[in-house]
Amino acid sequence: MPAIHSSLNFYLKPLFLSHSSISFSKFAIPKQVLSPRNLCALASAESAASHNGGRSGALSPPTVTEELQRIDVNPPKGTRDFPPEDMRLRNWLFHNFREVSRLFGFEEVDFPVLESEALFIRKAGEEIRDQLYCFEDRGNRRVALRPELTPSLARLVIQKGKSVPLPLKWFAVGQCWRYERMTRGRRREHYQWNMDIIGVPEVTAEAELISSIITFFKRIGISESDVGFRVSSRKVLQEVLRCYSIPENLFGKVCIIIDKIEKLPLDVIKNDLKSAGISEEAIEELLRVLSIKSLTELEEILGGAGEAVADLKLLFSLVENFGYSDWIQFDASVVRGLAYYTGIVFECFDRDGKLRAICGGGRYDRLLSTFGGDDIPACGFGFGDAVIVELLKEKGLLPELDLQVENIVCALDHNLQGVAATVATILRGKGQSVDLVLESKPLKWVFKRAARINAQRLILVGNTEWQKGMVGVKILSSGEQYEIKLDELE
Amino acid sequence: MPAIHSSLNFYLKPLFLSHSSISFSKFAIPKQVLSPRNLCALASAESAASHNGGRSGALSPPTVTEELQRIDVNPPKGTRDFPPEDMRLRNWLFHNFREVSRLFGFEEVDFPVLESEALFIRKAGEEIRDQLYCFEDRGNRRVALRPELTPSLARLVIQKGKSVPLPLKWFAVGQCWRYERMTRGRRREHYQWNMDIIGVPEVTAEAELISSIITFFKRIGISESDVGFRVSSRKVLQEVLRCYSIPENLFGKVCIIIDKIEKLPLDVIKNDLKSAGISEEAIEELLRVLSIKSLTELEEILGGAGEAVADLKLLFSLVENFGYSDWIQFDASVVRGLAYYTGIVFECFDRDGKLRAICGGGRYDRLLSTFGGDDIPACGFGFGDAVIVELLKEKGLLPELDLQVENIVCALDHNLQGVAATVATILRGKGQSVDLVLESKPLKWVFKRAARINAQRLILVGNTEWQKGMVGVKILSSGEQYEIKLDELE
Repeated sequence: MPAIHSSLNFYLKPLFLSHSSISFSKFAIPKQVLSPRNLCALASAESAASHNGGRSGALSPPTVTEELQRIDVNPPKGTRDFPPEDMRLRNWLFHNFREVSRLFGFEEVDFPVLESEALFIRKAGEEIRDQLYCFEDRGNRRVALRPELTPSLARLVIQKGKSVPLPLKWFAVGQCWRYERMTRGRRREHYQWNMDIIGVPEVTAEAELISSIITFFKRIGISESDVGFRVSSRKVLQEVLRCYSIPENLFGKVCIIIDKIEKLPLDVIKNDLKSAGISEEAIEELLRVLSIKSLTELEEILGGAGEAVADLKLLFSLVENFGYSDWIQFDASVVRGLAYYTGIVFECFDRDGKLRAICGGGRYDRLLSTFGGDDIPACGFGFGDAVIVELLKEKGLLPELDLQVENIVCALDHNLQGVAATVATILRGKGQSVDLVLESKPLKWVFKRAARINAQRLILVGNTEWQKGMVGVKILSSGEQYEIKLDELE
Repeated sequence: MPAIHSSLNFYLKPLFLSHSSISFSKFAIPKQVLSPRNLCALASAESAASHNGGRSGALSPPTVTEELQRIDVNPPKGTRDFPPEDMRLRNWLFHNFREVSRLFGFEEVDFPVLESEALFIRKAGEEIRDQLYCFEDRGNRRVALRPELTPSLARLVIQKGKSVPLPLKWFAVGQCWRYERMTRGRRREHYQWNMDIIGVPEVTAEAELISSIITFFKRIGISESDVGFRVSSRKVLQEVLRCYSIPENLFGKVCIIIDKIEKLPLDVIKNDLKSAGISEEAIEELLRVLSIKSLTELEEILGGAGEAVADLKLLFSLVENFGYSDWIQFDASVVRGLAYYTGIVFECFDRDGKLRAICGGGRYDRLLSTFGGDDIPACGFGFGDAVIVELLKEKGLLPELDLQVENIVCALDHNLQGVAATVATILRGKGQSVDLVLESKPLKWVFKRAARINAQRLILVGNTEWQKGMVGVKILSSGEQYEIKLDELE
């Protein structure tokens, strides 16, 4: 590849090339007979000239009464824009969600962000229900921006019925909404990664889900010294309640109350349980059981005959098999804040204890029947995009994600713009990304832009070279520069 | 790799392996002294036994009054679920959107699907405005599900101000909403791919956008015999209006009326224009100009001095340079239905004339000032996910996108479930996707599932082999089968 320093030097010296916009002279008013139809043309041309002559300044601004009003340039309260730098992080995160899901053989699904409100209404005092972003649509239907994905998934499973062979392994990455009346600096939307296994009654399913989350953590550099899982089973509570003959229909409500045990004073919890109709004796026993952190101790209290202990023992033995024991601990106080869980529940927390739960999930074998469908055993988790990013920041693990465009292509003369476009098209046809400089700009500007987009190569299309069918190439990392025939450009 | 047909034959014969769920015997009520705490355990175990004994049947269904109601299993009217097969198509489409955008050096951005209603309000009788999916939120704010992405983009550009060097080349793929009072089988949501160039006043920008759309078409197998672009400039209309001294602020309204020229009878159009305050003479001239399909003829009528003809001539010369002349034709009747366009406008149509516009775009140099910002020259397009899929169907070009999981891993004995999980983990660590069979299932079932997920390999974990640290492998395409040491499995 013959170096052509002299020629490139020529490019580099006159930093400001004198190509202003395309000349207008050829579009001057033609010396024709002014027929009636051309009167219009003349008026138009004169009018255009008497305005501002800017190429893009043809229309006057709208009248004040019609449109002009300073809009709030921020996104609505509690929502986010994703400018390129934030979008790169989101894409990186989602890519890892998707890649882990693929490794585990899960299929991606999605549902409308807007659902019928009825899908989310459960009478259990859930936070998620109280903060439902609901409203009436123009057809007077009660709808809601989904607060979570699981009810939609359950709806779709019922709809598909027996046409889909079980088990289903589905994942989704979708935006979820809530409406908080109080403002605590929390957002009204977040994205959530869900993985769900439909049709497997055994805790092998829960083990698989926890394994996928751990796989995700490892991929992004998070270890068992950063985070841990707390695992329990709703059946623990259920067995205690049953022993005090507390009606089963209070179960969901009790779970929701107990889920707030770390957020509210103990007295409030006790009062809430009492109001729900739980006896003082049962409350004391409940709280005693909830404080247990060891599976052996739980077995001592509940005995080994119930499903709670059996499920948990099996799960922990599978987890040991996976080699994930250091990630996971039993903690009877974990119940999760959704009414529909029926078995194993788990959540992931940061070991420094600074953040909210990173993700959470569990078994929900009875959700489908609450929608009028036949029950199918199911479990899943939700993993938000907010806390994990906070954690990555804390740990200095946020990836560096710069824009990277492989080539920047620039015409050195305005009449070569079409040629430059052709060069760009050829490179793109070879799978190379190209930022085409669309205006006549000084080379100083081009180099600045090349640096900003982290271009590897600058391709210059100049008259001298182009007459030989060649273009100038500059490798921006090394400074190496050469001329090359267009058809040899890779 | 030694073949072990005898051993695999052993696997294949007893199609129904007799591993039911894990044995419960070891969790039977322990023969302990029944201390008070164990009374509870006993009651719990008895209760569980007297229910149904199913592992996942622990909770009774909710009471009728509380939750049980047959939910509508369909997504809300006009919205879609994306079950796996539809999601694969959506992902394929979006991947092509993103890949083309990457080739052109565009950066991805996104905005909230929910925006302040004010962002979309323009008083020009646009269809998009009339069908705004707007409502009042719980804080009594007027909000709307975005009908398009461009206003949000403009808002973000104003917000970023001078902190971002121009030109910006941004793309987005986002869901957009509309609320039609009439039901015409049309959907209330669709996804839209947008590419926008902010900061380039020259039509090189429009040429670049059109080039990117053509690149997309070529990638997915659509040619210039399937689709074409109709291109014009709003400045054509503007020059005619100016010649009749029609106030500039009527311009947007006139464009919206004229955009319906193919949908409504000519008399209605004429009446609407008349009601907007346009003289009959001007209306006739407008309609005459709009019927022009040749740039030469346009130049004859408008003269060559105005920007309309200059822009269009330059664009067509660039298009010729790209080699895209066969894709593109001038058509003065194209004005597009959004009020904010100011210059070149274009749309893409199917040559059979069966479908609505596939995509559309144009220059909107004045949008930012309608939001109170400083104007920056800009252009962009929107490309929906609906019409293109219809076109691909029509042309038999829909890709075959089957689920493909590389491996299916199955334990042949329930106590090997943990080992099977380990095998899956090892393969996943090597980047291979694995569907792990989570229950004891007959081999017939496993093969059926393997076929459904298009697995390439079946990995069987059996006792005999595992004692030698080996697993059985069956290549499903060829039927080849062998034993292999776990650490040699790639």
